[in-house]
Amino acid sequence: MSSIVCDKIKVSIFGESHGEGIGCVIDGLPAGIKLDMDKIYQDLSRRAPGKDKTATARLEKDIPHILSGVLNQTTTGAPLAMMIENTNAHSGDYENVMTVPRPSHSDYPAFVKYHGYNDSRGGGHFSGRLTAPVVFAGAIAKQILEPKGIQIGAHIKRIGNVCDACFDKNQISKELLEQLSKKTFATISEETEEKMRAEIETYRMAQDSVGGEIECAAIGIPIGVGGNMFDTVEGKLAGILFGIPAVKGVQFGLGFDFARANASKVNDEYEIKDGKVALLSNHNGGILGGMTTGAPIVLSVAIKPTPSIGKEQRSVNLQTMENETLAIKGRHDPCIVPRAVPVIEAAVALGILDLML
Amino acid sequence: MSSIVCDKIKVSIFGESHGEGIGCVIDGLPAGIKLDMDKIYQDLSRRAPGKDKTATARLEKDIPHILSGVLNQTTTGAPLAMMIENTNAHSGDYENVMTVPRPSHSDYPAFVKYHGYNDSRGGGHFSGRLTAPVVFAGAIAKQILEPKGIQIGAHIKRIGNVCDACFDKNQISKELLEQLSKKTFATISEETEEKMRAEIETYRMAQDSVGGEIECAAIGIPIGVGGNMFDTVEGKLAGILFGIPAVKGVQFGLGFDFARANASKVNDEYEIKDGKVALLSNHNGGILGGMTTGAPIVLSVAIKPTPSIGKEQRSVNLQTMENETLAIKGRHDPCIVPRAVPVIEAAVALGILDLML
Amino acid sequence: MSSIVCDKIKVSIFGESHGEGIGCVIDGLPAGIKLDMDKIYQDLSRRAPGKDKTATARLEKDIPHILSGVLNQTTTGAPLAMMIENTNAHSGDYENVMTVPRPSHSDYPAFVKYHGYNDSRGGGHFSGRLTAPVVFAGAIAKQILEPKGIQIGAHIKRIGNVCDACFDKNQISKELLEQLSKKTFATISEETEEKMRAEIETYRMAQDSVGGEIECAAIGIPIGVGGNMFDTVEGKLAGILFGIPAVKGVQFGLGFDFARANASKVNDEYEIKDGKVALLSNHNGGILGGMTTGAPIVLSVAIKPTPSIGKEQRSVNLQTMENETLAIKGRHDPCIVPRAVPVIEAAVALGILDLML
Amino acid sequence: MSSIVCDKIKVSIFGESHGEGIGCVIDGLPAGIKLDMDKIYQDLSRRAPGKDKTATARLEKDIPHILSGVLNQTTTGAPLAMMIENTNAHSGDYENVMTVPRPSHSDYPAFVKYHGYNDSRGGGHFSGRLTAPVVFAGAIAKQILEPKGIQIGAHIKRIGNVCDACFDKNQISKELLEQLSKKTFATISEETEEKMRAEIETYRMAQDSVGGEIECAAIGIPIGVGGNMFDTVEGKLAGILFGIPAVKGVQFGLGFDFARANASKVNDEYEIKDGKVALLSNHNGGILGGMTTGAPIVLSVAIKPTPSIGKEQRSVNLQTMENETLAIKGRHDPCIVPRAVPVIEAAVALGILDLML
Repeated sequence: MSSIVCDKIKVSIFGESHGEGIGCVIDGLPAGIKLDMDKIYQDLSRRAPGKDKTATARLEKDIPHILSGVLNQTTTGAPLAMMIENTNAHSGDYENVMTVPRPSHSDYPAFVKYHGYNDSRGGGHFSGRLTAPVVFAGAIAKQILEPKGIQIGAHIKRIGNVCDACFDKNQISKELLEQLSKKTFATISEETEEKMRAEIETYRMAQDSVGGEIECAAIGIPIGVGGNMFDTVEGKLAGILFGIPAVKGVQFGLGFDFARANASKVNDEYEIKDGKVALLSNHNGGILGGMTTGAPIVLSVAIKPTPSIGKEQRSVNLQTMENETLAIKGRHDPCIVPRAVPVIEAAVALGILDLML
Repeated sequence: MSSIVCDKIKVSIFGESHGEGIGCVIDGLPAGIKLDMDKIYQDLSRRAPGKDKTATARLEKDIPHILSGVLNQTTTGAPLAMMIENTNAHSGDYENVMTVPRPSHSDYPAFVKYHGYNDSRGGGHFSGRLTAPVVFAGAIAKQILEPKGIQIGAHIKRIGNVCDACFDKNQISKELLEQLSKKTFATISEETEEKMRAEIETYRMAQDSVGGEIECAAIGIPIGVGGNMFDTVEGKLAGILFGIPAVKGVQFGLGFDFARANASKVNDEYEIKDGKVALLSNHNGGILGGMTTGAPIVLSVAIKPTPSIGKEQRSVNLQTMENETLAIKGRHDPCIVPRAVPVIEAAVALGILDLML
Repeated sequence: MSSIVCDKIKVSIFGESHGEGIGCVIDGLPAGIKLDMDKIYQDLSRRAPGKDKTATARLEKDIPHILSGVLNQTTTGAPLAMMIENTNAHSGDYENVMTVPRPSHSDYPAFVKYHGYNDSRGGGHFSGRLTAPVVFAGAIAKQILEPKGIQIGAHIKRIGNVCDACFDKNQISKELLEQLSKKTFATISEETEEKMRAEIETYRMAQDSVGGEIECAAIGIPIGVGGNMFDTVEGKLAGILFGIPAVKGVQFGLGFDFARANASKVNDEYEIKDGKVALLSNHNGGILGGMTTGAPIVLSVAIKPTPSIGKEQRSVNLQTMENETLAIKGRHDPCIVPRAVPVIEAAVALGILDLML
Repeated sequence: MSSIVCDKIKVSIFGESHGEGIGCVIDGLPAGIKLDMDKIYQDLSRRAPGKDKTATARLEKDIPHILSGVLNQTTTGAPLAMMIENTNAHSGDYENVMTVPRPSHSDYPAFVKYHGYNDSRGGGHFSGRLTAPVVFAGAIAKQILEPKGIQIGAHIKRIGNVCDACFDKNQISKELLEQLSKKTFATISEETEEKMRAEIETYRMAQDSVGGEIECAAIGIPIGVGGNMFDTVEGKLAGILFGIPAVKGVQFGLGFDFARANASKVNDEYEIKDGKVALLSNHNGGILGGMTTGAPIVLSVAIKPTPSIGKEQRSVNLQTMENETLAIKGRHDPCIVPRAVPVIEAAVALGILDLML
């Protein structure tokens, strides 16, 4: 298992859902970055549960405590360590027996891989809660990128059968991205939110859950970031994005729609505009030959429905090796897509920063 | 630019389309692997152009010459270097001026990134020809995996509007994968091939090109390979797959169809079968929490239409900074999807081997 | 700056001398290792100051608090995070102005590199205190290696003009190494300790400090660990050892004495002994061609005298850019060599474990 | 085994002593570097054998053939592949049975590690001949560093009992380093050469060999390159230097002499000189806290006597498992130290370039 991401900025993530806490060490940050803690809290708050019916009722405080690497609110160049305490931390010995693995969760392969030693309480290190340090690190990455004119924002493109408007790939404004990155339920079209909330409510009532798609854009990136072969922007970002639990697909520009397309329709032609080379379209999502073209990076990710549902499911008892049914108790997210939006932004911010250092 | 891939087995790829040749150095191979050169030639031949109307008429021989690391057809444990000579190699000074960048190619960002020093002849190091060393390395990876019971195969899932049958995700036979990995036009359903060839022909006649989707499966992998967070099987494979030119999307299991789905329909439940834990379905494509579940790994990638087309396109002259039109001469692939099949297999084989070492 | 070490087990170290605390995240530990906390405390205690006149009078408690990755005293396979609180941590804004850099310390290059943003209080992240997490991680590495029959121990080979006996390179007993790794002032010959303490006392009285050499051995390592070129055991261990403040030289086997030697005297010949290949000598310190030979690994490192001394020294004022003299107040170690012994052991343990995983 | 070195510029080395050839792929070179091939040949020629009695009589031509990454003598930014053909390359099946391992060579651990599959002809991939690609890559690194005002040069500090003058650590001229880096027998003091040649001749006559020490300096490096903990200049350079066969010790500045020293004598004090901070001495060899101080980097390495000697030695027969004696036939270097000088320079150049990119 590796919970370390990126090359030049390395983020080492630790913690378990029901342990002492969760956190990260960020190694390689430039010195002299004045941190705006409010912006960090804002992103953490967008990810945190408990704000409304779309998310779990469990109350988390998610207050990041900086342990090192920052002096007078400014980075020192030394590793920045951060910890969020779990308010539910207990001490003593634990019953740590995995009996009935939850379908479509990591429970069963983790049990086999770690010979039963993995902390299975609440998913342990596999819990979605571990995305909080990703959001924290991404919020810092955004603060380093923004003064360079780079803005990142994402929105819910789809939940179940309800779709939001899509980004106009070749023309995305800084204002739109700023607005999106402040919302707790981020949609481009205002009327979408209500429909999506209704869609989620339907599944919540049915003790079920529903998946979705998140579209993310990054503007202001200079031409030529990344590289071909195994240094592509796509490969770099996908490597991080697939580290976010529940992400099962990543596409850039038209993505899978390219499979139905012909070149004369989807090639991005050039023209001279104001004395500079400009693109007439951006079907490639801002990346050609693995390198940025100067146009917005536009990507989307597929999020599977959260597998923890109240409905009865078939599973097995790993101790008795007999079939058993399972109905997951407690209040779980009927849709994690809204909360995943800042996590996707964070992953993209970290990847872009790492490519640019 | 990094043309080095994987961690434990490192493949360092070199060469240009119109230079001396192309090749790779594979560092970290186990000693004592008896190489079956015929199988390597077979995969290279499936990728090579010139076999029929679906591919470019340019004749390449693509004979790999092993320079080191092999003695008596057996790996020695030292780095394996391989080179394929370009039969069109010339010497002397070159006119290397990029004038009119081809739309949707790497030409323009490469020109900016490398300040015009990049070898622009035939795409240089950015040429699709550089996938030949990937296929070579992947063919060796397959030979190491096969004795462990791991079989990898891929097929054309879609070209334009024509679709092949899909893999039955929870039950894929070794025989099917073996058959597919010998075909030069790999489809599951026999009647698909003719329809796809007709689809390609339509675009060829129109001096256009068409995209597609390739589905790949790997069976026989033990439970628990990979890991969560930034060591996921998905992230690892995607990082390599996006290094293949023209790949613009990667999805696992249901992938983007998860966005429309609800958990009670798509959760993969468990049962005891012959005394062992078995999955009732495999919507997750053999991966949960970033780790293999023992079920087949099933993924698909989107391939964009090859941007080199005969139709006139709008571009710019980088020397005069004026608009110009461009009609790409010569015979180019109207569809690279069939030739990309062994490249996808190779990328998956390298990724899985690297995760298992 | 990178404070991450090793490849398969990655140790990410954080903290500052006068910040909240210091600690590390260890990523890649196998699951199911039962930790003996007493052994960890013992090594930390050997490194800690304040035990006697040879070390600084500052009192540190150095109690490691495990934040994640351990359940029921057993590793879970998830990242193990640990923190040692600084009992002297303050909050609020700090005067962080570097005025007069201490000669032979990192002060001046750090000031230039980090543009004055680095935490300069007590050396910040550059403090020798940051070796405590290295000792912690190394103590865990030892506990993983010991059941495989691998024992590591070190002793003070020299302080100033006083030398200890050297290891008999081809025959080092487990008992000797176990004894050494329990001592707070580790010497092979008992009478050496007193002489060395006297040597140190001389320098302490003169408000000066003195350097030394530490010899470390590791036994029980199988043949063929490591590799040639850039995977050598020597390169791996040296890369970690030079990360320990004050280490200025690393040598293996005869090391620099090889420069005066001829092959017929120092070649390590073979013989058959009890039906096995055995070495008649071990001048190469257990490593040939970068690989272990099965003989003990024997290396030594040079430790420079700690540069913080009471004697007046010439320096400059970085604010006024004028010459200034400096006499470092407070009680500082007149010799850090005894306290560095467990740090060297830890570095060697981490390197060997990383090579063997 | 890994034959890949450095992080930002990656050099992947391949080849065997008696195979098709040897070479390397350099990944990550900046585009637009005009290569001076004469300087590359000069360094390769300094390393090549056969020039005089101090080196082996075997004739090698060592002409590097560039396969990719260079157009019009200028780097393109794509991987630079290079190959030196072995003029003694044969084809067909080989007798590859290791019978009697040469003492102090890699033969025996390589035999165990690679289960006898390693190419044992002439040492295979373990041969000193593999340092030629290191010299090639280092020669390019020097050409990138020189326009930045960075000059690297080395000399033979000692052979057996004969010592050369040492660098004046705090004041090393560009001219001296340039002179040294052109010599085939590099000494500072002219009279030393004759004495060293006589020392070598003595051992040659006795069918023996002798070791030595090489001192290397690098000037013109800005302040603050490198970092503390595991990003030190010392660790970086040592990691590469120990990859050179026969290197058994690496020290910086006073190195092991620090063990006998007291701080008040060896601390490097500061003064203001011409309005800038200057060092009064450079006992630390240009590195404090793992970072460069602006003073010359000065290091030295110990080279063991080449183990191949004509004198009869004790060994074992790995097939019969009986004792056997061995007298190595053919003309071997009685001292490889003079030929190792450009290899040490190359390793230092690669390390510094990698730290500065």
